[in-house]
Formats: sequence, C-alpha cells, structure tokens
Amino acid sequence: MRQFLFTITALVVGSIIFGGEAMAAQDVKDTKQSQEIIRAGSQPSMKGPAEWFTGNVTIRPLFGPKHPDAPFGAAYVTFEAGARSHWHTHPTGQHLIVTEGVGLTGTADGKIEEFKAGDALWCPKDIKHWHGALPTSSMTHIALTGALPDGKNVDWMEPVTDEQYKGGK
Amino acid sequence: MRQFLFTITALVVGSIIFGGEAMAAQDVKDTKQSQEIIRAGSQPSMKGPAEWFTGNVTIRPLFGPKHPDAPFGAAYVTFEAGARSHWHTHPTGQHLIVTEGVGLTGTADGKIEEFKAGDALWCPKDIKHWHGALPTSSMTHIALTGALPDGKNVDWMEPVTDEQYKGGK
Repeated sequence: MRQFLFTITALVVGSIIFGGEAMAAQDVKDTKQSQEIIRAGSQPSMKGPAEWFTGNVTIRPLFGPKHPDAPFGAAYVTFEAGARSHWHTHPTGQHLIVTEGVGLTGTADGKIEEFKAGDALWCPKDIKHWHGALPTSSMTHIALTGALPDGKNVDWMEPVTDEQYKGGK
Repeated sequence: MRQFLFTITALVVGSIIFGGEAMAAQDVKDTKQSQEIIRAGSQPSMKGPAEWFTGNVTIRPLFGPKHPDAPFGAAYVTFEAGARSHWHTHPTGQHLIVTEGVGLTGTADGKIEEFKAGDALWCPKDIKHWHGALPTSSMTHIALTGALPDGKNVDWMEPVTDEQYKGGK
C-alpha cells in the first residue's frame, strides 16, 4: 500500500513537475484559447519523495509544459537546512531562480557553489548535479525544467552523501 | 542619436528577454559543459522602452534561451502603479509568475483579471494580451517566454488605452 501511494504521488508529482508518462508529447497541447490563472494555494504542495531527496523538501507546483515548441514546467522547491536533491541529470537542462535564502549546488567534478536569492543557475543537459539548502539554513528556488518531446525531463540517481554534501570539509 | 540609442537598447533587451536576431536558433546552443550561476546584480536592469510599455517599467534580465528543445527566456519585470505593457502576442505563449504585489491582465475579448503574488498565468500562443500594475499599486512578475526556432517570441502592438486599462470603469 505504501509503495502504491508512493507510486501515485510520484506519478502526480512527476507529471506536474518533472515529466513522465502523463507529460508525453501528445499531452503538451495548447488547446485553451484564453488566458488561465493558476491561483496561489489552488494546487496542493507536496513533500519531496525520499526516492529523490534527502531531508525535508516541499514542492509547490506552478505549471507544467504547455507549448510543444518551448515545453518547460515550473515549481517552487523549498529545502530545509541540510536537505538536498539526489544526484540527477536533465536531458534539456534546467534553470533555477533562487527566491529565498542561500543554498548549495554541486556537480560530478566535485565543485560545490553557494547561490542565493536573486541568483539564477543554468545546468546544461546531461550534467550530473544536485541542489539544496545550506547545512544550517533553508533555501527556496523556482525550478524550470525543459522536457523532451516524449515528456522526459530528469534522470534520478543516487543520494548525495554527507561527505559529498559537505565537500570534504 | 536618440533613435540609434533606442535601437541598440531594444536589440540588447530583445536579445536577452524577448527574442530577436541575437536569439536565432543557431545561437541557442548548449555549449558550456558546466553549471553557470548568473549572480544577482551582475546584469544591468533596464527601463522598459516606451515603444513596448506605458508608464514606468523596470526589466531585470535573468536568462535567455539555452536549449533548442526547450528554448525560453526569463526576466523580472516591475510595473509601477498605472504602468502596463502594450498589447502583444507570443508565438509559443508565455508564463508569468507574480512575485510581488497585485496586477492586472487583459485580453482582446475585453476580459480583465487581477492576479497577485503567488499566482501563475499561462497565455496561449497568439492570444492578444497585456499585463501590468494596478492603477494604484505596483506589481512584479517573472516573465517566462518561449521562443520559436528563429528566435521570435513576441509581436508588439498598440498601447493599452486608459479606457481599455480601466475596463470601462
């Protein structure tokens, strides 16, 4: 039952934010002929699944891909102190816009950088990275993730160990 | 000289935010093999040109299109009280994420809606719209605008008249 609930949650989260079956090309259609306002609070926020995150992470969906020529989805993601994503790559890259606090991001070459509210980050396609809060303070960013025509926009990998997160310090 | 300076400004603003020659498909390449952080304050903000806006508008660029499969650019745009864009359309649509204040958006059918911090808006392709502040209070949003393969992402039109802005009120 627990696995079932996780699967459902992951499908919902995945379809809204990270891509997946529900976001395949045929669903990225621009059928509405009027503007659409997605009101604050109208979409439930979700806990970041332990299969993709370490620590306490809250995902607040904004929107999914809409137009096939520029398909990208967006969500606010808040990482509590010490929380971070697992290692992952994005097939068409990812933009982050930090909106609150100070965070960390690391790449497979061992480089770890701080970024803070007002900073934007571009992670090119297939670059293995992670992002999260400082060990002592929370961080919120908007994640803007492009999708391939088949809807795929992320490949999740192994957790970021404490040693990797602290960069040997 | 003044026209020359405007042309230069428009080309720079256009290339970063709205598309244009400098954002043609051949430039939307993903050449960097590492993450790139665009630091807060590292890119100059710009006054919204009178050719595209009514009133005082400040544009703070975030990033331009990076990957050809999901090409979109982003900028913070702040509208002082009473300020608004001219009428315009987007060939692959536009997402707005309101980050501060309360604003207004209108479409060619005469509909005007309020939106506020936390709300997201999707404007489908080729829907003629405008967006801006309340008459009495400022609004900031992130504009996320997809580009066609040739770099085009907006068609600017005529100003929104005071009567249109006030919706007959």
